[in-house]
Amino acid sequence: MTHDEARARAAAMLADAGIVLTPAERDAIEVTDLGLGRLEEVGLQIVVYVNTGRVCAKELVMLPGQICPEHRHPPVGSDPGKEETFRCRMGSVALHVDGHDEIVLRPGEQFTIPPDTLHWFQAGDEGAIVSEFSTRSTDEHDVFTDPQITR
Amino acid sequence: MTHDEARARAAAMLADAGIVLTPAERDAIEVTDLGLGRLEEVGLQIVVYVNTGRVCAKELVMLPGQICPEHRHPPVGSDPGKEETFRCRMGSVALHVDGHDEIVLRPGEQFTIPPDTLHWFQAGDEGAIVSEFSTRSTDEHDVFTDPQITR
Repeated sequence: MTHDEARARAAAMLADAGIVLTPAERDAIEVTDLGLGRLEEVGLQIVVYVNTGRVCAKELVMLPGQICPEHRHPPVGSDPGKEETFRCRMGSVALHVDGHDEIVLRPGEQFTIPPDTLHWFQAGDEGAIVSEFSTRSTDEHDVFTDPQITR
Repeated sequence: MTHDEARARAAAMLADAGIVLTPAERDAIEVTDLGLGRLEEVGLQIVVYVNTGRVCAKELVMLPGQICPEHRHPPVGSDPGKEETFRCRMGSVALHVDGHDEIVLRPGEQFTIPPDTLHWFQAGDEGAIVSEFSTRSTDEHDVFTDPQITR
């Protein structure tokens, strides 16, 4: 699957879920394979609504079975690190958070991940749409467990 | 219209828009007339998804023509005041922000209001569902222009 195909599929999933994007947002859906070249297995499609100095909101669109691999958001300077709330909108996502058993989120269910806490997640068989409400997002500070990952 | 009727109508609007709530969230939809006793004209229905020390996310559900009256979110201690991004999901909302002409948001459109900036907003003829992404929400610090308003 190419990045363009993944972007088109994410746009279709969002439309099916009744989540309206502007044409510019649809064209700008970010597709990342995290540098591993196995997009269908490991990767994310992302709509960034807003990312100010204080607040970030995104939709994460995941293909069936797709994984976002283990990482954490460490403190940076005076910032304690990114805090994230994941809220499932469509499909299901299995969330693996350090210190917790597996947490499966279905539509309407959510979980808040504290800063600097290892986590990874995988979409179920239908894929998933997950709203992320967080503090400022700075991808370059994310620490992935797999040293082959680039973001 | 009673508060229970407004809550039921908001729940129906959210369901029509494909926004899934848990039964507990549906029961907990906040209805406020801001103390004015004219809910159909002035008021809000609110679903609070999350409100931590750093991040808040809500859905604001507005009945047709309903107004959220002029207010601002002032600095509190070391906090510069609440920053809010409004993203329209359904219907339309006319946003009046100090220093700007009227901003009409339709589905997929959004606007970020800086801290401590006077603003008010009114739903269009179909009502509106507006996602709010913000820093921590502390209603007790909001400053409304109309001294009769209580929150």
